[in-house]
Formats: sequence, C-alpha cells, structure tokens
Amino acid sequence: MNGDKVAVIGIGTTPFGELWERSLPDLFLEAGVKAIEDAGIPGEEVDEIYGGSMSTGLFIQQEHLGALVADRAGLTPIPSTRIEAACASGGAALRQGILSILAGESEIVVVGGVEKMTDTQNAAGILATASDAEWESAAGATFTALNALMARAHMHRYGTTRGQLSQVAVQNHRNALDNPHAHLHRAITPEEVLESPRVADPLHMLDCAPVSDGAAAVVLASAEAARRYTDTPVWVAASAQASDTLALHDRDPTRMAATVEAGKRAYAQAGLGPRDIRFAELHDAFTITEILSLEDLGFAPKGQGGRLVEDGLTERGGMLPVNPGGGLKGCGHPVGATGLRQVVEAARHLRGDAGRRQVPGETALTQNIGGSGATVVVTILRR
Amino acid sequence: MNGDKVAVIGIGTTPFGELWERSLPDLFLEAGVKAIEDAGIPGEEVDEIYGGSMSTGLFIQQEHLGALVADRAGLTPIPSTRIEAACASGGAALRQGILSILAGESEIVVVGGVEKMTDTQNAAGILATASDAEWESAAGATFTALNALMARAHMHRYGTTRGQLSQVAVQNHRNALDNPHAHLHRAITPEEVLESPRVADPLHMLDCAPVSDGAAAVVLASAEAARRYTDTPVWVAASAQASDTLALHDRDPTRMAATVEAGKRAYAQAGLGPRDIRFAELHDAFTITEILSLEDLGFAPKGQGGRLVEDGLTERGGMLPVNPGGGLKGCGHPVGATGLRQVVEAARHLRGDAGRRQVPGETALTQNIGGSGATVVVTILRR
Repeated sequence: MNGDKVAVIGIGTTPFGELWERSLPDLFLEAGVKAIEDAGIPGEEVDEIYGGSMSTGLFIQQEHLGALVADRAGLTPIPSTRIEAACASGGAALRQGILSILAGESEIVVVGGVEKMTDTQNAAGILATASDAEWESAAGATFTALNALMARAHMHRYGTTRGQLSQVAVQNHRNALDNPHAHLHRAITPEEVLESPRVADPLHMLDCAPVSDGAAAVVLASAEAARRYTDTPVWVAASAQASDTLALHDRDPTRMAATVEAGKRAYAQAGLGPRDIRFAELHDAFTITEILSLEDLGFAPKGQGGRLVEDGLTERGGMLPVNPGGGLKGCGHPVGATGLRQVVEAARHLRGDAGRRQVPGETALTQNIGGSGATVVVTILRR
Repeated sequence: MNGDKVAVIGIGTTPFGELWERSLPDLFLEAGVKAIEDAGIPGEEVDEIYGGSMSTGLFIQQEHLGALVADRAGLTPIPSTRIEAACASGGAALRQGILSILAGESEIVVVGGVEKMTDTQNAAGILATASDAEWESAAGATFTALNALMARAHMHRYGTTRGQLSQVAVQNHRNALDNPHAHLHRAITPEEVLESPRVADPLHMLDCAPVSDGAAAVVLASAEAARRYTDTPVWVAASAQASDTLALHDRDPTRMAATVEAGKRAYAQAGLGPRDIRFAELHDAFTITEILSLEDLGFAPKGQGGRLVEDGLTERGGMLPVNPGGGLKGCGHPVGATGLRQVVEAARHLRGDAGRRQVPGETALTQNIGGSGATVVVTILRR
C-alpha cells in the first residue's frame, strides 16, 4: 500500500479485565458503538465490518463471529468477516479493513478486536493452539515456556539482565496507572517481579501479560470520506504483515524475523525509518518480547533493547516512549483485541486526547505479534 | 469491485473423504501446490496467502492457520491470513484475496480452504458453533435441526415435496460418480433417501452432506500478471458477501436474505442477471438448501425451486446445470474447503477440462453459505 489513503476517524475500547458479567458480542458492540459515536457517523454509513479474534471456538464455543457482531449491531446485510492470526488477529483484521478501502470496495469500515478469555479455566491450553500443535503444544510447551526460551537465549547471547526484564514490567504497570481502561492498576517494584511465582524460568508471573476480557475498535475511512467527517483524521501511513515458522526450533530465538520484515515493509510504505517514530505501542505479552521488538524494529542495536529500557529511554519522557498507556502487561491482553487496543491508544495520543498519560509526537508505530512471532503486523500512524 | 480485474490462473484440490492418514497442513499444501503448479508460476512469485477454515481450534487444537501454512509451504515471510466465516470461510477467504489484488497490495495470491473434520467424534457439536450459541446451540439445536425447520416451513408454505428434496440428493450423488475427488461414489434412489435414518424430520441422513476432510485452492492474479502466465484465465466477474442474523428465529425460514443480497450485489458487479448464468455451484449442505438457493438467486420464482429440480432443469443436460461435479452432497463438505472447491470446479468447467462431467457455458456462479445463512458469498466467474 501507499500511505495516507486511509484514516482512523473513530476509536473506542471497553475496559479490559475479568468481565464475567459481559458476553463477547456485548464487548465487541460496546467498542464498536463507541468508535462509531466517536467518528460521528450514522451507522448506515458503515460499508463493512472486520472482527479479529483468536479462538472464540475454544474460549466460548462460538465461531462465525463476523455475522454475529453484524447481527447484534443491527448492521446486516453488510459483509462482516472474522480474521484470525492468533494474538495478532486484531492487527491482521485492521489490515484487511484497510485493504477493503484501498480496493475501492468500501468507504467506511469498522474493525474491532475482541476476546473473552476468563470464562474458561484452560486459557494457557487454548493459547497454546497458536503454537505448532505437532511440534510444540503436543509436547507440553506453553507460551510462557517458549518465551522463557527466548529470554534465556537472549540473556546468554547478549547479556540481557533479569533486572532489565523486570524494568519492562515495572514501567508498563506504572504507565497503566493513568489508563482508566487498563486491567491492572497496581504499581510494582523489581523485587515484586522476582517474588511473584516463577512460571517458566527465567519468567515470573509478573513478566507475563494477564489473561483478560475486552474489545477495542476503530472506524476507518477513505481519504474522501475522512474529510467529510473529521478535521482531525489520524492517517494510516503503513500497514504491513509478515509470517515466520510457527515453531521456535526452526529459527533464531533471539530475534523475530517477522517483526524485522513487517517493520521493513511498513517503513518503506510510510517512507520513514525508526528515527522518525515518536512513540510506539509494542507487543509486550512477556517482558522479553518488548526488548526483542525494540531491537527488531530498529529502535536499538541488536542486543541493546534491555539497555534502552534500563536507561529510561522508553519512559513517557524518554527519547522513544513505549506503551505509554501500559502495554499488554498493564492493560491486559484479550488476545484478539490487543492489536486494535494499540491503535486506539496511539490514535488517542496523536490527537492529543490521552490525558495524564499523553506523550508528544505526530508519528506512532504499533506492533502486534501472533504466537511466538509467526505473524507480526506493524502499523504506522500519523497526524 | 468491478469485474474482470482479477483472474483465477491456477486450481487444485485434494480428494475429499475420511483422510485419517493426512494432517490439515498436508491437505492445504497439496491443494496449494497443485494450484501453483497448474498456474505454472514459481512459488517465489506468490505475494500473499489466505486460508479459509471454520474451526481448526475445536477440530484439531490448532489455531494460527495462516502462518502455519506459509511455514509448511516454505513461503515465509509473506503475509498469510486465516479467514473464518463458518461454512462460508472458503468463499470469504477468496473475497479477501481478490480485495488484496484490487488494493494493489498483491499481484499473485494463493487462496486455500481446508477442514479436517474426521479426527473428532463431535463434528455435529463443533458445527453448531456456527449457529447462535446463546439462542440455538445452547438449547440443543444442531444444524440438521435448523435446516429441518427451514425445510418444513418451505414445504408448508410452498408445497415443496419430500420427493423434490430426495431428487436433489439423487442428482448430486449421480453427478459425483464422474468426479474422482468426490467423497461419495454411490448412486442412490429416492427410496434409499427415505430408508436412510431420519436425523431431524423431514431430513434423513441422505439429505445431509457428509462430514469430510479436504482442501481446495486457487491462484489469483491481477489482470496484468494473468496475461503473463496464461492464455486461458478465468475472470472473477464478481465477488460479493452479505450477512444476516445468526439465529433462525429472527428471520423468515423459507428464504435466505443474505443469499438474495449477495446475489444482488454480485449481479450488479458483473453487470449480469440470473438468465446470464450458464451453470452454478450451489451450497447443498442439505437438500433443502439447494432449493432455497435456486429461488433466492433468481433461478426460479419463490417457491418453485423444488419443481426446477423435479423437472430435470438442473441436470447436466438441463437449462441450468447445478453442481455438475456432485455438490457438497456428493463431494463431501470439509466446511472451510467448500467455497474454494466450488470455484475450482466451476473454473474447470469454464476451461473445458471437466472430463465426463463437463457442462457447457462461459459464465458460472458459485454460492457458499455460512451457518444457516448468516454469511453468504456469491462469486461469478467467466471465460
């Protein structure tokens, strides 16, 4: 794609958390209606819906999410399609919405992401279906175990420290304190990270994003429609997706090639480089993931991601604020919703509407990872 | 979309059946590689992959199908995305592949559909996740039960007969005899349909498409790329999708509004009407579904679909041949694969490569239904 032909003109999100009293379509609807109201468009103007979710079948015994949300929203008969790419489902759904507009198929598209994860006691088992069933999950590997392998390899090869990992969690928890939609509102210390239960060495419970329910949505518009409805569009400068092997044993565990590739494609689309990005929403499903992503997107030399965090450069007042609203670690990680939650958060900052957590800058990058890096979607937004 | 900007330049399908010795990625790969070989393109020319499947999570404990197939095909790092729309997943995936080309994002796209259904003993329960979990499946409604309600209502309102339903099954079984990839190779009589076990009155076992494993795939190309690789492209004249309520109680059970709407959109895109269609692949998951679809797509006046079949007009030699390769009833219905299997079959006939089951004509329509009609995708192809 070429940039700036599609704009985000509306954003909405539910609170993230353990929302036992809310159903999955309820959550999708709340986020979608908020985004439509925020855009100030009549519902009849929506040409198409995309919904990202990882595993509604296993989580709540309901597939066919696309038609379901069009039905509950009273928006039939427009096309409504579910996109699945594990934890990158939200980012992948966003890309399909963008392609529909670029194709001339639609002028206005609602893209939502949702997951309802806390109705089951087997979230870890369900999440493992994003890894390779034949080579990983069947052998008992959980996602935390796979990320622990990546963390250990990175520590071994580059000297990344346990303290740097903890710092990622500490910072994102602190950022989430100012985000009313975040799942976790609790400042933590590096000591508390180490005192939390060890899940898979070297990762402790507080290295892991929590299992959450929630939804987030955006309204996308063609350039022409965007001008009709808003004076403050947030432009999609780039949306790029890349894939890699599902199984970790087939690749270098200290980098995610799909992040490198999606980043390269996104930078090319936008005509920008890492130095042009003012803040980023990175996929910190685990503390190590944020460090890998900083490196693989070119924000730090390979092996130096941990140092960037340790030196405070990713703080809100730093050179490159990362996850100013708390990231996955603080906001929670309803897997299908995360890619959209990141875009909603970035758009909020670009508009200057992020309140106490506001960071400056007119160009933002969001990165959404599926599995242990087999799908990565990178989006670049600008005012 | 406007028609004739995207072409089908390669087709491939696995045999459909109970393929216990084959894995889901194996099946996808076989169909995809056949389609790529048929197109005569090097694998490196593929820009993007889409995969349609309904419920790999519940059927085989594997989500993240997009990256998985790119991985197994050795086609990383190109984007590879799973589309889910219940039994219309294949048709919906095809549409996303078309949009990617129309958007200028890709020149050559592989779209596959796959399902591995016979590794579980709970296929009926898993299929029910395509219906409304809150209003239908939780109350015990299976898909056969929902389609039986539609059949009974149609018989009551329009006088459709039990014999007309049987005739749909008899004809599709007969057509499948000449299709080497079909799951069922067995001629049946109307008496045998009635002697088969009653599943949900008035539907008997032989009114229902079988539970199957299988995959089908196509290679799509932009007009320019198509001209580079083939002298006999099959053009996509239209691809349209529509949605309706998931639950049957919210709508008239004797018609599928999403079929009507998707058909209307497709005819408009192609600049054609029902009389211009020379043969059709209709979604006969149940015998009643083929009758409804004949009416809702304008091939018969409302209420007269059964008569069209009874009078032999949908036979291979009839006015409008329907499912000349056996349809879902004869070929089997690996749900995510069906929408692509229909397009592969239609393209084969349009090229004149369908052997003993060949029907004449340069314009074909395929219709792929999700759930009891909540998602419908209609594709029109022409030489």
